[in-house]
Amino acid sequence: MKNYREELWFDVPGRRALINITQHVESGLHASGIKEGLALVNAMHITASVFINDDESGLHQDYERWLEKLAPHEPVSGYMHNLTGEDNGDAHLKRQVMGREVVVAVTNNDLDFGPWEQIFYGEFDGRRKKRILVKIIGE
Amino acid sequence: MKNYREELWFDVPGRRALINITQHVESGLHASGIKEGLALVNAMHITASVFINDDESGLHQDYERWLEKLAPHEPVSGYMHNLTGEDNGDAHLKRQVMGREVVVAVTNNDLDFGPWEQIFYGEFDGRRKKRILVKIIGE
Amino acid sequence: MKNYREELWFDVPGRRALINITQHVESGLHASGIKEGLALVNAMHITASVFINDDESGLHQDYERWLEKLAPHEPVSGYMHNLTGEDNGDAHLKRQVMGREVVVAVTNNDLDFGPWEQIFYGEFDGRRKKRILVKIIGE
Repeated sequence: MKNYREELWFDVPGRRALINITQHVESGLHASGIKEGLALVNAMHITASVFINDDESGLHQDYERWLEKLAPHEPVSGYMHNLTGEDNGDAHLKRQVMGREVVVAVTNNDLDFGPWEQIFYGEFDGRRKKRILVKIIGE
Repeated sequence: MKNYREELWFDVPGRRALINITQHVESGLHASGIKEGLALVNAMHITASVFINDDESGLHQDYERWLEKLAPHEPVSGYMHNLTGEDNGDAHLKRQVMGREVVVAVTNNDLDFGPWEQIFYGEFDGRRKKRILVKIIGE
Repeated sequence: MKNYREELWFDVPGRRALINITQHVESGLHASGIKEGLALVNAMHITASVFINDDESGLHQDYERWLEKLAPHEPVSGYMHNLTGEDNGDAHLKRQVMGREVVVAVTNNDLDFGPWEQIFYGEFDGRRKKRILVKIIGE
């Protein structure tokens, strides 16, 4: 069994952003030489997500609006978590809707994707360096 | 290490449906001969889900009503994504709530399930051929 | 390839609770001797979740309030599922928001975690014995 590990670092200037990381993950997979297996891609922070969906800017605005409706940032006093001095209570909730991780099949040393699948980093509490883990196992 | 790959194709006649695919996945697992490992089952389309829950028709009606409340199909003009000419903005959101994939333990060449666990394909934008990926690795 | 399997049993006295199970999973991983691989941790029941987030009591109260808002327990007659005689329709919905499972990278025989990642069992219909599955594969 082979395994591969890589961290991807990002420093999102604003509070929230969706970043397409598909090519980063593919590059790591190609470097790994793993032909058949499973690739795990997960946020290593608990106010961020990794998810798979469409790279379409209108949809990304829909996600932003929808997540703000489901778990609004303001008022920050609306979250018990923010009594700790944080202001990111909402980000911990948004992350649960969008998910922590994706597991992707590896076939013939490629991500085994349908036509529109792209991997995104969903940042909900940025403005600092944060990272994603890529771990691939197989042969 | 062994690996197994299969695509399951569906053409749901309506816009939305929940379809129990447990037996399809089990058949593939038995064919694979893999005794111990992990099975990944994921939607290959970004307006559909694979998830695990109960095969109970009342619950499925609850999911339908709840998802329509969280991310209603109408008005289609309520989604920026639909400015592309699509009318499936809601389906991209519903899919995030229900999830893209499940990972299931394989033990003794069977799905290692609790008493009520069943795998479902959740279609939120049907009326065309779409597919699910089954990838199993182990030995 | 090595594999490891363990069931963790819990009997939550109330209807809902969030329980940190990180140390249980770590103990199993250390016992397994698996150095590099993937660990799957999933609820074996369909009214419970396994998820990764912060071990902070204020946040846990935020989750409780938020999930009750998204899928309230009362009125129990509000769920078709409850026509079966159950009163846990809401728990099947809450579980979808929080997720069934997590997949965690195993590196150097440890859970490969960011600074605040902790694994939780999310119980939404307790007051009886229920279990979690830990399955680890690797070498």
